[in-house]
Amino acid sequence: MDVRALVFDVFGTVVDWRGGIAREVRRLLPGLDAEALADAWRGRYVPSMDRVRRGELPWTSLDELHRTSLDELLAEFGVPGVPEAVRNELVLAWHRLDPWPDSVEGLTRLKDRYVIASLSDGNVALLVDMAKHGGLPWDTVLSAELFGHYKPDPEAYDGAARLLGLPPERVLMVAAHVGDLAAARARGLRTAYIHRPREHGSAAAPPPETDPEADVSVASLTELAAQLGA
Amino acid sequence: MDVRALVFDVFGTVVDWRGGIAREVRRLLPGLDAEALADAWRGRYVPSMDRVRRGELPWTSLDELHRTSLDELLAEFGVPGVPEAVRNELVLAWHRLDPWPDSVEGLTRLKDRYVIASLSDGNVALLVDMAKHGGLPWDTVLSAELFGHYKPDPEAYDGAARLLGLPPERVLMVAAHVGDLAAARARGLRTAYIHRPREHGSAAAPPPETDPEADVSVASLTELAAQLGA
Repeated sequence: MDVRALVFDVFGTVVDWRGGIAREVRRLLPGLDAEALADAWRGRYVPSMDRVRRGELPWTSLDELHRTSLDELLAEFGVPGVPEAVRNELVLAWHRLDPWPDSVEGLTRLKDRYVIASLSDGNVALLVDMAKHGGLPWDTVLSAELFGHYKPDPEAYDGAARLLGLPPERVLMVAAHVGDLAAARARGLRTAYIHRPREHGSAAAPPPETDPEADVSVASLTELAAQLGA
Repeated sequence: MDVRALVFDVFGTVVDWRGGIAREVRRLLPGLDAEALADAWRGRYVPSMDRVRRGELPWTSLDELHRTSLDELLAEFGVPGVPEAVRNELVLAWHRLDPWPDSVEGLTRLKDRYVIASLSDGNVALLVDMAKHGGLPWDTVLSAELFGHYKPDPEAYDGAARLLGLPPERVLMVAAHVGDLAAARARGLRTAYIHRPREHGSAAAPPPETDPEADVSVASLTELAAQLGA
């Protein structure tokens, strides 16, 4: 592989969204089933983006989609009276998710040898805040927001390669989700699968250990760095 | 000032374009007047962007504008036979400009307390390469390319605040050029002027030492960090 840049899915791949959201729900809404709310919130993610994709909504940032989903869920969870300030704080919990233990070391090593950028559905402000919170050393933040298209729309992958000034085969997409990687491959990017067995908690069925379609499958970002000579 | 993010002009403000381009011209085209070519190349910068602004050209990246200008200038300088590979290498010299001596320390200190991003007419790939070359620790790269508008079009300043998720008055534009700052102020951003007396070489008339219209005027990015408590 003659790869010059690595672009990374973020939620689940680089950071632990479930642990971070559940922690903030426990802090701000004690008494609720925090993991259940985290799972239900994340469960609305793809359907809410699909409304944008189908044109039922104009471009709407992930922060705004998160807020709408949260309002619906708080009613469903039987706590409709949560104050505005708490709702805003919960939406910002997505900006303060912690990296997986191997993420910062892996990214830091990879950055010495490659351009590294996010390629996430999170909006730019969310990704910038998250990088500062967790010490993610991105060369730059790339986001669906820059292209007006959520993954797996082709515009997101094409746009990342275009902005980086590279042909798609010199860009490696790194993700813990086989669908994201399949969409990236369809646009000509190289792909690396990372096994994140705890993304959905220890009670959920684990994802596959490898992705046979990917150029490489690893168990951590430090292993990816080793495999790529960084 | 309740500023959360600082956005920086790059050419002349953070890096020394004249010294860097002249050095590469000397290396690749020995015998030419390297400073004269650097000045003439930079002189075509605004007119070439104006062609995009007026709609005579579709969106064209700074790399592409640099290439067109270079081809014209090599003919004018009497060296029309310069090989394609050398022309490409010269265009990439804009990706490898050195920071001013205070830039990396100043940005590093400011990054601890603020979000720091470029806001440059350079394309994203150029800015990413430049940051890796010089160790510029951007939280993210913002570029006219993301907005399809070169500075001083209002879309560039509005777009930066929008992507950072901030009202314009919480964004501070830092530049060595009063026109850039005036355009930023017209869109509601706060402004910081930095005096870069050597941008155009020691023979040129120096720029003003301060900008009375700016919120703050400084002589270096380390002085800016000190003034902003970083």
